Amino acid sequence: MTAAAEQIRPLSADDLRDAWPALASDERVEGFVLLDPVEAEDFFLSLSTLGQAQIIEGLPKEKRRLWVRLLAPDDMADVLQEIDEPERDGVLALLDEPTRREVSALLAYAEDDAGGLMSPRFARLRPNMTTDEAIRYLRRQSRGTVETIYYVYVLDHDQHLLGAVSFRELFQAPSDAIVRDLMRPREKLLTVPEDMDQEQVARLFAQHDLLALPVVDADDRMKGIVTIDDIVDVVQEEATEDVQKYGGMEALDTPYLQTPFFSMIEKRAGWLSILFIGEMFTASAMGHFEHEIARAVVLALFVPLIISSGGNSGSQASTLVIRAMALGEVKLRDWWRIIQHELAAGLVLGLILGTIGFLRILAWEGLFNTYGEHYMLIAFTVALSLVGVVTWGTLSGSMLPFILRKLGFDPASASAPFVATLVDVSGLIIYFSVADLLLSGTLL
Amino acid sequence: MTAAAEQIRPLSADDLRDAWPALASDERVEGFVLLDPVEAEDFFLSLSTLGQAQIIEGLPKEKRRLWVRLLAPDDMADVLQEIDEPERDGVLALLDEPTRREVSALLAYAEDDAGGLMSPRFARLRPNMTTDEAIRYLRRQSRGTVETIYYVYVLDHDQHLLGAVSFRELFQAPSDAIVRDLMRPREKLLTVPEDMDQEQVARLFAQHDLLALPVVDADDRMKGIVTIDDIVDVVQEEATEDVQKYGGMEALDTPYLQTPFFSMIEKRAGWLSILFIGEMFTASAMGHFEHEIARAVVLALFVPLIISSGGNSGSQASTLVIRAMALGEVKLRDWWRIIQHELAAGLVLGLILGTIGFLRILAWEGLFNTYGEHYMLIAFTVALSLVGVVTWGTLSGSMLPFILRKLGFDPASASAPFVATLVDVSGLIIYFSVADLLLSGTLL
Repeated sequence: MTAAAEQIRPLSADDLRDAWPALASDERVEGFVLLDPVEAEDFFLSLSTLGQAQIIEGLPKEKRRLWVRLLAPDDMADVLQEIDEPERDGVLALLDEPTRREVSALLAYAEDDAGGLMSPRFARLRPNMTTDEAIRYLRRQSRGTVETIYYVYVLDHDQHLLGAVSFRELFQAPSDAIVRDLMRPREKLLTVPEDMDQEQVARLFAQHDLLALPVVDADDRMKGIVTIDDIVDVVQEEATEDVQKYGGMEALDTPYLQTPFFSMIEKRAGWLSILFIGEMFTASAMGHFEHEIARAVVLALFVPLIISSGGNSGSQASTLVIRAMALGEVKLRDWWRIIQHELAAGLVLGLILGTIGFLRILAWEGLFNTYGEHYMLIAFTVALSLVGVVTWGTLSGSMLPFILRKLGFDPASASAPFVATLVDVSGLIIYFSVADLLLSGTLL
Repeated sequence: MTAAAEQIRPLSADDLRDAWPALASDERVEGFVLLDPVEAEDFFLSLSTLGQAQIIEGLPKEKRRLWVRLLAPDDMADVLQEIDEPERDGVLALLDEPTRREVSALLAYAEDDAGGLMSPRFARLRPNMTTDEAIRYLRRQSRGTVETIYYVYVLDHDQHLLGAVSFRELFQAPSDAIVRDLMRPREKLLTVPEDMDQEQVARLFAQHDLLALPVVDADDRMKGIVTIDDIVDVVQEEATEDVQKYGGMEALDTPYLQTPFFSMIEKRAGWLSILFIGEMFTASAMGHFEHEIARAVVLALFVPLIISSGGNSGSQASTLVIRAMALGEVKLRDWWRIIQHELAAGLVLGLILGTIGFLRILAWEGLFNTYGEHYMLIAFTVALSLVGVVTWGTLSGSMLPFILRKLGFDPASASAPFVATLVDVSGLIIYFSVADLLLSGTLL
């Protein structure tokens, strides 16, 4: 944007939001300082953690304080983790003393634990207050120091959690009712420990339709709350990580267009090389059958068709099982049900593809006379191999996630292409074994 | 569970929740009626739409009313869509007249539109009320007839949206302040049209960190609100659909273990057959090079290795691009940036795999003397083909989602295995062309 254009029309937040993904870090800061101050505040708050960190780092030191103080302590802690080490202390120093202490406490948690997600600023009450006292007290607390007033937590003097009451219940109760009588008692409350993984926290939110969850330490002292708006981001983030892992790579930590070139290559080359090395066994497997190929070159023609069918059916099965595991629909102990289920599915799918393959070979033979006098035997070899390879691909695709999880690995990690590689090698063995069986004495 | 065990210990909601995914529909109903009545209510509300429909359908007619009346109209509308046609009217008749009218109105919307997600029960105010009047009025409304009081909408007599105020702002304002002066005016409000797709609505929630969004019709009359708790489910659901599509199948409408066998086969066989038919071109492509294979069988040994490397690198690139598109990070107009980016990435990745492949052939030759006198030429052929195939795979994997979207298709639909098939055929052509070039006069 030229200097003249700037004078005619100030940049709107919508324009900037639209261009945002395509802008480099310094262009983002340039655009941001052009925003109308009121719009800028909303815009800043709606940015991702990474975006907020870029703005703070990009602004001159004397302009940072305003934006730093706009952030809630939990968001500030996340932003600080994106800021480079040398700058970090300077940014932390811009906060007022109590906030700085809160943020420092949060920095001690791992970013993707409940502790790293939570806000320490929740609304709290004592059990012996009346509704009227409670509402007055909340009205004072609600001026900017709490994340939400929609759930209110009842604590004793040592911060132990005694119960919770929704603001709505408080609001509807008679003015002399006592908080203790209104609250849902501790034993009926769902809470999460500080070190629970964010994926599990997200699953609790989805299962129970919650707006907030209290976080407690090992002594049942309340440390903070996780609110649903943080969970939406977690769900998106975890889905993206899973998808990238299915795609056969390490999950990126940053949006695609903002990931530096060589860090992107690193995330991709690692798995690609592992898969490549695994796939080298196909060359060895084929080497074992070199003699058969030399005698019947026609066999080589169907190699890509057969192994890719095994790979595709395997990746279907593993995708289904991994996603069902991530959603908690399938547990480790369900493995036997899944085997039965997928064995049947694999056989049916194999029969379908085998039939198509069989008809294709007969059709080509009829049309172009491609496969010579033994075309019927070739058609049977291909069809039978397809049934075997697809069944085996489906079965191993559905079992690999169980094995990975049992061994303590994340089943999403490269399962699908891993299955493809496994199935490619075993598919070749199945194919050439079937060929040996059906064709020896004729073609072989 | 035996009859004796039931008498000793009533079934707890946690036990049932744990066993839930593994239970058939009638077992679920059997378990549900064993729950303690207070627990049963929470449990019922935390079920998925499908689970709620199963319970209602499974209960005898006279016991249904209690549970049907527990649901908010938007949830009831979703549940009705899961109930079989002949039962549906009977269930609808259990509602009181005003709720029945609300539910029927919601049934007119597509399930995955904003209109299908929204609740018509939002809290509303008139612009000329004072804060005190407003709070008193809300206190009346909040007794069970509104979904949330945390955002309150200001409407004129024709239901046109004039503005919105958060309950928190109202709560903190002086008691004689006027709603009109406190509210965020219409032009600053984000709203969604009734027919906006739920995936887009979810993206707005994530971008702007919202708790609720008003839904308006074409005349700017307010029809309802979408709240963030519905959005968490949408985000999960859409991620699952996308993941299943990446895995090369149609998205399932129901959880994996609850999908009937033949409907599962249908969803999987369709794409698998399409990919199989696409993959048949590999047999034709190989057929063209039958002569080369017959003269140098060693070439056939590397076919699976080379085409799978193309497939893996293509599926990495397409996964990255599709997910970035789904999150709104990459737009159609970014295609040229992506081409440059992925061309460079593909070349680097190809050089890495090419080098590994080259070294592997030299090592095997040194160790086992596998490849004969022309091993160096074979190594060069494989390495150069890998550079070409990986670069081409990466490039086509990143561009296919753009092409699919440009043509109006969902880029997630089977892109990854589609790329693999495309790359398999072109990979064979690249490989044998390189072989023709480097080996003619020696091996060929």
